[in-house]
Amino acid sequence: MTDVLLRGGHPWGRGAPADILVRDGRIHLVAPGVEAPDARIVDIAGQLVLPGLVEAHCHLDKTLYGGPWVPHSADDTLAGRIGNDLGRRAELGVPSAERIGALLARMSAAGTAHVRTHTDIDPQVGLRGVEAVLEAAASAPVDVRQVAFPQHGVLINPGTAELLEEALKSGVEAVGGLDPAGIDRDPVRHLDLIFGLTERYGAHLDLHLHDGGSLGGWELELITERTRALGLGGRVTVSHAYALGQLDDAYQDRLIQGFAEAGVAIATAAVYSFPVPPIKKLRAAGVTVACGHDGIRDLWGPYGSGDMLERAMHVAYRSTFRRDEDIELALEAATYGGARALGLESYGLSPGDRADLVVVPCGGAAEAVVVHPARTLVMKDGVVLHN
Amino acid sequence: MTDVLLRGGHPWGRGAPADILVRDGRIHLVAPGVEAPDARIVDIAGQLVLPGLVEAHCHLDKTLYGGPWVPHSADDTLAGRIGNDLGRRAELGVPSAERIGALLARMSAAGTAHVRTHTDIDPQVGLRGVEAVLEAAASAPVDVRQVAFPQHGVLINPGTAELLEEALKSGVEAVGGLDPAGIDRDPVRHLDLIFGLTERYGAHLDLHLHDGGSLGGWELELITERTRALGLGGRVTVSHAYALGQLDDAYQDRLIQGFAEAGVAIATAAVYSFPVPPIKKLRAAGVTVACGHDGIRDLWGPYGSGDMLERAMHVAYRSTFRRDEDIELALEAATYGGARALGLESYGLSPGDRADLVVVPCGGAAEAVVVHPARTLVMKDGVVLHN
Repeated sequence: MTDVLLRGGHPWGRGAPADILVRDGRIHLVAPGVEAPDARIVDIAGQLVLPGLVEAHCHLDKTLYGGPWVPHSADDTLAGRIGNDLGRRAELGVPSAERIGALLARMSAAGTAHVRTHTDIDPQVGLRGVEAVLEAAASAPVDVRQVAFPQHGVLINPGTAELLEEALKSGVEAVGGLDPAGIDRDPVRHLDLIFGLTERYGAHLDLHLHDGGSLGGWELELITERTRALGLGGRVTVSHAYALGQLDDAYQDRLIQGFAEAGVAIATAAVYSFPVPPIKKLRAAGVTVACGHDGIRDLWGPYGSGDMLERAMHVAYRSTFRRDEDIELALEAATYGGARALGLESYGLSPGDRADLVVVPCGGAAEAVVVHPARTLVMKDGVVLHN
Repeated sequence: MTDVLLRGGHPWGRGAPADILVRDGRIHLVAPGVEAPDARIVDIAGQLVLPGLVEAHCHLDKTLYGGPWVPHSADDTLAGRIGNDLGRRAELGVPSAERIGALLARMSAAGTAHVRTHTDIDPQVGLRGVEAVLEAAASAPVDVRQVAFPQHGVLINPGTAELLEEALKSGVEAVGGLDPAGIDRDPVRHLDLIFGLTERYGAHLDLHLHDGGSLGGWELELITERTRALGLGGRVTVSHAYALGQLDDAYQDRLIQGFAEAGVAIATAAVYSFPVPPIKKLRAAGVTVACGHDGIRDLWGPYGSGDMLERAMHVAYRSTFRRDEDIELALEAATYGGARALGLESYGLSPGDRADLVVVPCGGAAEAVVVHPARTLVMKDGVVLHN
């Protein structure tokens, strides 16, 4: 494998231009004026270099990406969307390894290197979603980690708990959950079950929490208590966490302090008009914040492009971030924050890190988020994919 | 001027493909199988044809578009943003006909044919903004209409009222206003003044209303009363109208009924996390809804691309529109709605209408909004600008 020398770029966070020498799939050297006569040289003078983007919350298995436009057919209720999903996925060939592969190719072209995807698990679809994702991921230049996701509830949907366990046994990296109160109607049993699986299989946990206001706040307390009691810090993520954006400052502060101490991460997608968690406060307290698209072109909604810089723009925009240092927090969520939430190793722009890199024709990180222009170069494990 | 025949496209709203023959800057014929041996033929088979997009609310005079990235430097208060704007615009050469021209070129490339822009008028800048916009617009393939906009208040900023009147005398098409209560501290006098100017000069009126909740609701009543009393229906637009998205259903309904009867239009930009007016309800009641970007790359914030299909996506997304027919309401705001708010004549896709057209490689309107792909063709007054 020929060495690659990225010449003259600005590695994000470094403050000065530096060449990046890539060898055997890793970053070998980051310094100005690197000499590497045998390397393939790519001139990226003045451009920004980021670590490969991290899509920390999506639903690959549901996607219709790359196929014809499918008008949204559900009514405006959650029950309507669930029913529509169950009713139409067979007709539309969902889950489809072909569609998932098309989306992964698009994600990769936009510089995404790592994906965490919530894959539906229920007695109707069984583990077919898990298999379709595995099949597509096998030939995609993106690392994909799955969450065994009980989209239609666990306790209210008999047979699901067993399938979640089967998924974990088969190597799925994380277990999911869904509105322990609002959907599954028994928050304590729901959480005990999924935390139990997490502990037993040495897995990660990533739970969808749409429940709002004081109900959602109380569930966040339950999650924090369990994370702390079981010593699962660094392995637990709460996705969406709308409640967090709805509570008063004092309660918000107490919850955030708990996340920081217990090691609970927050993942946001900034979708539609739903509340976005207070990212500045979370980061100031040292809480990991990740982000992702949520659904992309599926039966739940037609939006989403697969571009994580564009998604970071939505996160920054909905957070009313105008200043560069604030907008950078959204990019942090789409890179290092996601990497921490997923437990990635050797992630970053330092020697020894995996050479997952993306180059954008921008002078700085805030501009990259706001403008999200076409990528100049995408590299995965040292291989230049797009240039 | 050679005739142009757009062959095989889907004119929006027609339900079947049709050729469009353009002659002397107008749409001459819309029908299947048009024969036009002398025309320049452009094959757009299967693609969607829209009327030229309408940017109904922006601030061209403030833009830094096309220049280097300028980190946002204001604090998080409205007073901070006003002070920052006043303090830095001279340093940054704002208003700049060159920057405005760059933005208009971008808007045109994305298919925008008509722009309403709110131009700052105050004793410091005088009418220099108006002049810079006129200068840039003179050579841009976009029709630009200005609103004489008292960004820093009217009653609280002596000399502004006289300048507004001077602007109208010089041919500026509309008079603006700004939070009659929240900023100008005397809603009745503020509204009487700007409605008076509107009537005296046969102008349009387009007022920024950020004032929220019951205060904003009451100001909407005052605006509706004056529009009705003065018979100004069809010439009055309220921009932003955040209050409308915050009030309870019954009050919302009463206000909307008033807009419909009096002829008050609503313009939204769906910026940041601010409330978006209830577009479905407004349209169901027959109220004109327009949309625009608000600021684009300026001292008030770094966001905005100039692409009205992307802006329509933001409007639809923040409205939680998932179904095709709902998403189309956002496109309606970016086309026919904007045209009605601005009082444009001969706007549309019928024979006799001005040949301002944009072609997108999409099967339908909802897809055009969600995906907002690069435009296949842009035509202004019969001239193909981008193809």
